[in-house]
Amino acid sequence: MSPADPRPGSDASGLVADRLLVDARILTMDAQAREIGRGWVALSGDRIAALGQGDAPAALAGLPAEDMAGDLLMPGMVNPHAHLAMTLFRGLGEDVDDRLFRYILPLERALVTAEVVEAGTRLAAVETIRAGVTTVADMYYFEDRVGAVLDAAGLRGVVGQTLADFDAPDHDTMDEGFARLDALADLYRDHPRITASAAPHAPYSTDLAVMSRVAQWAADHPGLPVQMHLAETHAELDWAQRTHGCTTVEVTDRAGLLGPALVAAHVMYPTEGDIALLAERGVGVAHNARSNGKAGRGIAPVTALRASDVPVGLATDGPMSGNTLDLFAQMAPASMFQKIAGGSRKPLPCIDVLRMATIEGARVLGMDDRIGSIEPGKQADLVRISLDDPRLHPIYDLASALVFAALPTDVRATMVAGRWLMQDRRLTGLDADKALADALQVATSFKARIAEIDRTKT
Amino acid sequence: MSPADPRPGSDASGLVADRLLVDARILTMDAQAREIGRGWVALSGDRIAALGQGDAPAALAGLPAEDMAGDLLMPGMVNPHAHLAMTLFRGLGEDVDDRLFRYILPLERALVTAEVVEAGTRLAAVETIRAGVTTVADMYYFEDRVGAVLDAAGLRGVVGQTLADFDAPDHDTMDEGFARLDALADLYRDHPRITASAAPHAPYSTDLAVMSRVAQWAADHPGLPVQMHLAETHAELDWAQRTHGCTTVEVTDRAGLLGPALVAAHVMYPTEGDIALLAERGVGVAHNARSNGKAGRGIAPVTALRASDVPVGLATDGPMSGNTLDLFAQMAPASMFQKIAGGSRKPLPCIDVLRMATIEGARVLGMDDRIGSIEPGKQADLVRISLDDPRLHPIYDLASALVFAALPTDVRATMVAGRWLMQDRRLTGLDADKALADALQVATSFKARIAEIDRTKT
Repeated sequence: MSPADPRPGSDASGLVADRLLVDARILTMDAQAREIGRGWVALSGDRIAALGQGDAPAALAGLPAEDMAGDLLMPGMVNPHAHLAMTLFRGLGEDVDDRLFRYILPLERALVTAEVVEAGTRLAAVETIRAGVTTVADMYYFEDRVGAVLDAAGLRGVVGQTLADFDAPDHDTMDEGFARLDALADLYRDHPRITASAAPHAPYSTDLAVMSRVAQWAADHPGLPVQMHLAETHAELDWAQRTHGCTTVEVTDRAGLLGPALVAAHVMYPTEGDIALLAERGVGVAHNARSNGKAGRGIAPVTALRASDVPVGLATDGPMSGNTLDLFAQMAPASMFQKIAGGSRKPLPCIDVLRMATIEGARVLGMDDRIGSIEPGKQADLVRISLDDPRLHPIYDLASALVFAALPTDVRATMVAGRWLMQDRRLTGLDADKALADALQVATSFKARIAEIDRTKT
Repeated sequence: MSPADPRPGSDASGLVADRLLVDARILTMDAQAREIGRGWVALSGDRIAALGQGDAPAALAGLPAEDMAGDLLMPGMVNPHAHLAMTLFRGLGEDVDDRLFRYILPLERALVTAEVVEAGTRLAAVETIRAGVTTVADMYYFEDRVGAVLDAAGLRGVVGQTLADFDAPDHDTMDEGFARLDALADLYRDHPRITASAAPHAPYSTDLAVMSRVAQWAADHPGLPVQMHLAETHAELDWAQRTHGCTTVEVTDRAGLLGPALVAAHVMYPTEGDIALLAERGVGVAHNARSNGKAGRGIAPVTALRASDVPVGLATDGPMSGNTLDLFAQMAPASMFQKIAGGSRKPLPCIDVLRMATIEGARVLGMDDRIGSIEPGKQADLVRISLDDPRLHPIYDLASALVFAALPTDVRATMVAGRWLMQDRRLTGLDADKALADALQVATSFKARIAEIDRTKT
């Protein structure tokens, strides 16, 4: 195309724009976290074609335009660690130390079927979209069903087949688990939004043999993430020392699993050597501030990890542990925890918290070339946030307002791959009422079993 | 009244009910934190006359009734420590360690007038009502204006005249400060909702002489609370040791200020002896989880204080420090901080967090005979909370849902002294749009001064 022949809708990135979002305040979360006070974004199918300040240039003026009415556009948030179907266990056994063995494992073994996972994931998808999260990495069972729900919801997702030595609801042997994993990789090969992933539960519950097998699987499936809980509990550190005479991070490295594909959840207790190793191998970390805090596990060394250039994404964990699937709820705790640990206001400033919720989370998932910021050529995963509530004002610093005062209910609209999944807080695809009703029906059967447990165990 | 002669609208408490709230889920926050799955509350003017399970009894059936449609009724929340007008500084100097001396004190000296305080407080009142907080203790300047705004808003408030040795915006000498305080006590003598209060800034900024004078003032004004920052910073502990050879709590006791009237804000670093002393003297503590966390000050010993029967209320601090005036935002951090400090899920369970936000906050202010729970004879300070959002479900434990998943935007209606201040999220009295516009106008002048400071100080 010659400069003398400007085609309406074309731009510098070479993408042909087909529509505009105008009159938006824009937080790009690009490398400079550039903010545009009033500007426009041009879209081309599922992608961002261009963006700029003020009114759209004349060459784009003829395109259909949606008025953002001064609302904020920011990148869709990225949640790199969740167990979506565990919405069904939300808040169960709160404040009870042995709730994992008392409630969760027995309930999972007895009651978690493909249909149950589907119901729980659908409720989770409703909440995820409503909170402005556009990409979520899941780690649970029956992940073909999880993928189907996320796909139908229009979300972007990483679906991780859990591999565990304890009785899993969807596989009796490790061979069965790997067969499910292979089927999952086949199912989502070349899918534009759903990515298959291997999810060995944790070093202590898979041990070297399984982790090594996963490492081999990952080598055979370049581009597919591996998700694992790592250095989450003191018991895990003790196990590694007792069984292998080293740290749990080192055990994982021996298995060949530390690499850019790995999404390590929690990483509460790494040694200095562990942090250096994670950085060297290019591992990403999913930080679950509320889940860790509620469990009384302490404060993860997020500042030290990031200082070593280990990318750290903000994550929700499952709603049994973190209660919500909303990254706003993680922002203030994540920031406060680092300030408390550092004894100062300075650690983890607000803009870095927003990085963790967007571009850095994308980097953790190995998807930062496609999502996590508003930049030409990237996927059009956007959230529109109303800044109208008096609770947010005055705004001296947009990042502070978003981290310490904004709520998921300020999210007005959510777009994934150029498609609005929510407009004016109404979902455009999913039936939220039905999703809730179905989930509540499952919860009723759970409650009966919980009452039984409480009768026999008190 | 004989049982043979049941008068419509009368009940066991002797109050004659004049209207009903029906079909409500009720969390009473009485001594047993009793929950009523579906019930009714009868009101009599500004008070609660009676409540019960199921449908209202026949004797009350003729009264006008409002349908709560299954929503939750809980006591209006109590915020025992705030600097309301500091909405105007919200999020200013976030992540900057020296922001107090760099921004706040210069701005306060130069720009805080009675009109500015009024504008900031009005924005704060809007946010307070919308968050379901019905009582707030303020500590700032020009408190006659604060009282006027809270009164006009229909809120219940404790207005604390700050007394400080540094240049205060509303008094040049301590005599002037005490004159303002006396005038305030006169102004609100016998007011049904507004209570005057003395607010010496902190031991290090008032020293023994001023604190002793306040103690005398408090003895002359029984029933009026005294508010003070206490044991908030390490610098304060050092000051006490250096100047008086004891702890800052002990200095305060020497001044005669430790007593049931005292609302001590923060209490981050008490010794075991200090805690015993606070308990013995009947002092109440206002815990500001987010403010403390954001300042990197560490974790207040809430568990130890409460174990010694020191009442601890959940508070917001000023929006410059805590960003919002919403107690939901304090609940999860308060709980997580204690669990982190205790290394377990067990400390500060959800129901205790709700106590701190309601009846225990009322006890801190010496008002638990009138507010803080839904019980016959108490003031009708109520909040109606919608539990409809999918994000809250399933609910295995109502307290967990409120502490870890509810948001201020779930508050549908707020009642103080029998009058709805908000219905369906619309304020019935205050003009929220005007309050915001006025506050933003003040913020514009602040921003000019801030730019000047940043030019000269960088």
